[in-house]
Amino acid sequence: MALASVMDESGAQVTVWARSEVEAERINTLHVSKYFENYVFSPSIVCCTDIDACISASEYVVIATPVHAMDAIKPYVLKYRSKKYLITCKGLFDGDVLTDYLRKDAPELNLAVLSGPSFSEEIIRKKITAAVIASRNAELAVEFRELFHTDYFRPYSGTDEVGVQLCGAVKNVYAICAGMADSRYSSSNMKSALLTRALAEMDKLVTDMGGKQETLLGLAGVGDLMLSCHSSLSRNYMFGFNYSGNTETAVTTEGIKAAAEFYALAEKNGIDMPIINSLYNTLYRKMDFCHEVNTLMKRTLKDEFLQ
Amino acid sequence: MALASVMDESGAQVTVWARSEVEAERINTLHVSKYFENYVFSPSIVCCTDIDACISASEYVVIATPVHAMDAIKPYVLKYRSKKYLITCKGLFDGDVLTDYLRKDAPELNLAVLSGPSFSEEIIRKKITAAVIASRNAELAVEFRELFHTDYFRPYSGTDEVGVQLCGAVKNVYAICAGMADSRYSSSNMKSALLTRALAEMDKLVTDMGGKQETLLGLAGVGDLMLSCHSSLSRNYMFGFNYSGNTETAVTTEGIKAAAEFYALAEKNGIDMPIINSLYNTLYRKMDFCHEVNTLMKRTLKDEFLQ
Repeated sequence: MALASVMDESGAQVTVWARSEVEAERINTLHVSKYFENYVFSPSIVCCTDIDACISASEYVVIATPVHAMDAIKPYVLKYRSKKYLITCKGLFDGDVLTDYLRKDAPELNLAVLSGPSFSEEIIRKKITAAVIASRNAELAVEFRELFHTDYFRPYSGTDEVGVQLCGAVKNVYAICAGMADSRYSSSNMKSALLTRALAEMDKLVTDMGGKQETLLGLAGVGDLMLSCHSSLSRNYMFGFNYSGNTETAVTTEGIKAAAEFYALAEKNGIDMPIINSLYNTLYRKMDFCHEVNTLMKRTLKDEFLQ
Repeated sequence: MALASVMDESGAQVTVWARSEVEAERINTLHVSKYFENYVFSPSIVCCTDIDACISASEYVVIATPVHAMDAIKPYVLKYRSKKYLITCKGLFDGDVLTDYLRKDAPELNLAVLSGPSFSEEIIRKKITAAVIASRNAELAVEFRELFHTDYFRPYSGTDEVGVQLCGAVKNVYAICAGMADSRYSSSNMKSALLTRALAEMDKLVTDMGGKQETLLGLAGVGDLMLSCHSSLSRNYMFGFNYSGNTETAVTTEGIKAAAEFYALAEKNGIDMPIINSLYNTLYRKMDFCHEVNTLMKRTLKDEFLQ
């Protein structure tokens, strides 16, 4: 709904797909959504529950479902494979970045991804927001860029599809760490050190998996990491802040599952990610977070960047 | 005093130089300093007002004076030119990074620099802190690294002397911007966008001036930027937060002078630094900060990174 309102404002004719007839009715008649209290959307945004009708009538399709629904969405992407798709959800599916997951059976798909520091609660209030739209097809990224440009929303284009997706997914893991660090250490020095070393890990991850180092410096990298690790609007951060040993109740906290996925990905590809390991040990092996941090501090002194 | 306590704890014999007899007496007898209330230092830290005696008796010399005293310190560095120096103050002097300023008349000097996210108030309370020590002489950086290693202070070594210094100095300018942004926009999206684009400017600055891109990703780069832009402990941030048009009263706010210095440096070297320009216009040409931000938002859409 937040991105729909940006596209609407930039002049596009927007149809939102919803599973729920009740939500569709609410959007079409009252122009409100259950996800955003006290906000009235533009009446020109239409909602429809027929996914085939939605996609077949559109030139551009924005996939903003939760990541775990990606297998339910995939058949429609394959059915309408000439459409232009923009993926805005963040995570891995079956151990792959989402563009790779979708392209497995259709390498020719027109895919782009959107990421960056952008709480939807702030987008609908028209706060200044910048994001990156990346596609290995540079022209497609530029097309989507124009579709999302308003006075308050500023998209940049890029080509590092893989790097942008890895950053967007793994930052949820570090947001949990940041929350834990803030509640246990209350130290700006410690938190900055942790997040900087997290960025060094992300650097290894992205470059080893075929992404570009510059992406780390950008909106999807450090931008989104800063946002997610410094705000109570971040579910992952708040989960870490309040963590007391229970992961059962937190199904919407994407970083929990991502911690296991990136732990496995790092193992499989031989990438040294000590902070991911520490969080994995904390969440899945019930180790103490502070004990894990102390272990990190005792590692041999070294150069900040390997030559 | 904060770094003295780290070195003392790592096993070095530390003599602090102070101009004031009163402060020296206070440190030597009561083991307290006027700069840190309610903290008692180790009695093994000695203070002395004779700068020649201090330097001549030492193997390693840490220069932790304010930047504006660099010309008063320089004659002593030239007099004792075989000593090993670590510079911890941050800024430009006569438009140069401090190592270049000192080396002008003595290219053979043994110099290293220390930077990173490290509020001294937290260091003396033994909060976990990481920093980078860089020298074009890699072995010297490693020597200093060992000298500062304790349970809570973790130094990394590096060789990008120039990049580390530029990052440490210019971040004060962006900390002022961050304070202004927080008080005027109260938006996490907007602040993250601003700081990420600040990092893109720092990237251009550092690489154009001969530094390395990886430094931006490190403790002196994004680490210190995050710290300085997210904490009320930062004088520069608080100056920006409370800014209402008056720069006269803020002599200890290093970012004000740095804004003019980096504006001139960017002009001279043809580096495009729109955020520096915006702050320069706000502070020195009395433009409105929000007007400057709106101008930034209206720039032509483009790729996030130039190819």
